[in-house]
Amino acid sequence: MTIKKVIKGSGYTAVNPDEVQFLENILVVINQAGKIERIVTPNEADYDDVLTAAPEVIELAPHQYLLPGFIDTHIHAPQWPNAGLALDRPLYQWLNDYTFPLEAKYQDLDFSRAVYDDLTKTLVSLGTTTAVYFGTIYPESNLVLAEMCDKNGQRSLIGQVSMDDPELNPEYYRDESAAASVAKAETFIKKLLAKNQEFTIPQTPVITPRFLPSCTLPALKGLGQLAKQYQLPIQSHCSESDWENNYALEKYGKRDTTVLAEAGLLNEHSIMAHGTLLNDEDFSKYQKAQASIAHCPISNVYFGDGILPVKRILQHQVNVGLGTDISGGYSPSLYDNMKQTILSSQQLQSGVDTRIATEKRGVANSRVSAKTAFYLATVGGAKATNLKIGEIKPGCFADLQVVEIKPKPYQPQSSDDNFESLIYNTNENNIKAVYVGGKQVK
Amino acid sequence: MTIKKVIKGSGYTAVNPDEVQFLENILVVINQAGKIERIVTPNEADYDDVLTAAPEVIELAPHQYLLPGFIDTHIHAPQWPNAGLALDRPLYQWLNDYTFPLEAKYQDLDFSRAVYDDLTKTLVSLGTTTAVYFGTIYPESNLVLAEMCDKNGQRSLIGQVSMDDPELNPEYYRDESAAASVAKAETFIKKLLAKNQEFTIPQTPVITPRFLPSCTLPALKGLGQLAKQYQLPIQSHCSESDWENNYALEKYGKRDTTVLAEAGLLNEHSIMAHGTLLNDEDFSKYQKAQASIAHCPISNVYFGDGILPVKRILQHQVNVGLGTDISGGYSPSLYDNMKQTILSSQQLQSGVDTRIATEKRGVANSRVSAKTAFYLATVGGAKATNLKIGEIKPGCFADLQVVEIKPKPYQPQSSDDNFESLIYNTNENNIKAVYVGGKQVK
Repeated sequence: MTIKKVIKGSGYTAVNPDEVQFLENILVVINQAGKIERIVTPNEADYDDVLTAAPEVIELAPHQYLLPGFIDTHIHAPQWPNAGLALDRPLYQWLNDYTFPLEAKYQDLDFSRAVYDDLTKTLVSLGTTTAVYFGTIYPESNLVLAEMCDKNGQRSLIGQVSMDDPELNPEYYRDESAAASVAKAETFIKKLLAKNQEFTIPQTPVITPRFLPSCTLPALKGLGQLAKQYQLPIQSHCSESDWENNYALEKYGKRDTTVLAEAGLLNEHSIMAHGTLLNDEDFSKYQKAQASIAHCPISNVYFGDGILPVKRILQHQVNVGLGTDISGGYSPSLYDNMKQTILSSQQLQSGVDTRIATEKRGVANSRVSAKTAFYLATVGGAKATNLKIGEIKPGCFADLQVVEIKPKPYQPQSSDDNFESLIYNTNENNIKAVYVGGKQVK
Repeated sequence: MTIKKVIKGSGYTAVNPDEVQFLENILVVINQAGKIERIVTPNEADYDDVLTAAPEVIELAPHQYLLPGFIDTHIHAPQWPNAGLALDRPLYQWLNDYTFPLEAKYQDLDFSRAVYDDLTKTLVSLGTTTAVYFGTIYPESNLVLAEMCDKNGQRSLIGQVSMDDPELNPEYYRDESAAASVAKAETFIKKLLAKNQEFTIPQTPVITPRFLPSCTLPALKGLGQLAKQYQLPIQSHCSESDWENNYALEKYGKRDTTVLAEAGLLNEHSIMAHGTLLNDEDFSKYQKAQASIAHCPISNVYFGDGILPVKRILQHQVNVGLGTDISGGYSPSLYDNMKQTILSSQQLQSGVDTRIATEKRGVANSRVSAKTAFYLATVGGAKATNLKIGEIKPGCFADLQVVEIKPKPYQPQSSDDNFESLIYNTNENNIKAVYVGGKQVK
């Protein structure tokens, strides 16, 4: 395929949860389709020829590094204006006083456009090249979100949110019936697939029952059917908190995971958020179904009633991605959520109450490293979305970010030290460029 | 006293750990001494006259708010180049492979100047107007830190670090003897007090035994004596981890707190870092001594073996300030540490291991709010340092920061909502101005 541009520099890409590869002074050869055609290392004979032949060469400055763009596997787009608000409120008040009234405003498409324009720009500037969005119950507003993703250069999965149970949803903000939930989801799917013809970056519809407490069983089953019919990804929340976990047990006499699986909503295309209350039996079901968990570590501190045991889940061979869960989490940055992934795993290992003896305080062998957090934000997200992204390697879309570490009078450092420093110290200001499908979007 | 300038705008100041006062459209009248002479509210008769008479008026832009500058009550200045490094290493390796070799470099005063210039600028730009520093064992290098604070407009307490025990300190980085520890501390005190004559902002020496494991008892006692003689503040680490807590128990058959108290190091001028392993008996001793705890919530996740029960400590009437603990903590920002204060307290309340029943998982009634975190970063720090700072009120130094909340298409918000949003969403970019002693330093 024709070569479009070459990026020359050093970078990092995750190999597995414990290993990050340092790619020193490579050429990333990007083709017309926006994919990485080839990685050329300095010891290859045609390194200089590739450089000479390239129609465009972008050379990274000193102290700059290339990383895969990040994938936010769980974010509520309409809740963006509430980021950092009402986090000391219990879930009930948070939903009914802050969240549902805000989501209901998105009938207004101008309001939708203003918020979604700002949100998608912000995420791209933070290095998030793909996001898996919950939208609202309004198909037209969700299409505006897709337009803003395309406009600002972000790859996305967008969910028409389905919520039909009159018992737990307010009258002013719910689908009229199970049939309406399914019909509106299908309308959105068709319209988005049609819109994709006009877009530069294809945006994917995703089947999105809000969570078990807000959906009737007929709605869940209808949505499972729709997912199968259109072969689409699926997202929801699963065992996020004691309350949610107990809700399914009381209503169905079954666990969240089982109810979702029986409705046809747990398969290799599923991304389930949170999961702090999942148990080993659930993890086995996730592993068999090849379903993914979207770990939202900041949000979980407020609403999760405990810490997701990431290391144990990875040992169960279950895939885990990272999510910001705006506005259950306050930060739109996956850098912040990578840091919180490490902090939460450390806290799980240490425990919290020092009046308890050391050996009984926490859960041994729970700590994960910066490398694991980076794996979740890149490869984990790619596996969750089944897209060719999240790695610097041939065949993947050239969804990339260029980050710069401020040069300080450091002691000599290894590439591993530089990597760790980069995970901990990167913020919006030192993300110098972002590419999606090879096109510069920041 | 003569009026120098007036700042006109709205702001927030902490009243107690649960209450933040919204000061709407006030005039902050700053005198020649750099202190707040008066706060004028719009309903006062001479509001317009004060404005007219002021030699200089600074008016805040829309969406800007005035806050007291923050006080970082625990930060290791020489460790700045290591921020975000080696955080997956055990304490022993962290100290011996990363920390001590770096601290030993500060014999080089050019290196000292380069790092301390960058550090103090960074902190000021993050709204930290006062910092309580651990320096190194080199008096001349610590004086360079004082010069950089004065140059970049930061108020500080600076400690000549004392560490003389040959058993636990490396040969290349320790004081030669207990007598040398005390003599070097006194040299530094005298030189800094003399230097203060040249400075715009007075910098305070602080007695700084590193921690019990690195000091012999004669050094501790000698330093206690010195603190009394010069009436100086004191800082150290106290019960930071299981290891440190057990060290004193094994060596002295006494708790950290008791050994420090008996050496004359625990009084109303003491700021002790961490304290995650302190028990109720210790808290009573802190309360009686009127000593303060420097809470370093990010660092504690890595090295603290549990969470400091901030709410319980405040109920014991013990004062708590906030610290970044660079580089045990990776972030120089007290905004990040305020957020982590909230997150850690939430985690203490929720617990971590969801295999444990809800009611046994965490510690009820532990959660603190954004208001409490703000109180610690301002009033708590002021009480710890015994300086007239940390509040927007007459008699306090005009150490202030101006922060801006990006206007978004928000739903209508209360001043409480705005306050919370400001704590969660402020970063270096939206801290628009910083004042120390009424002088703009950012």
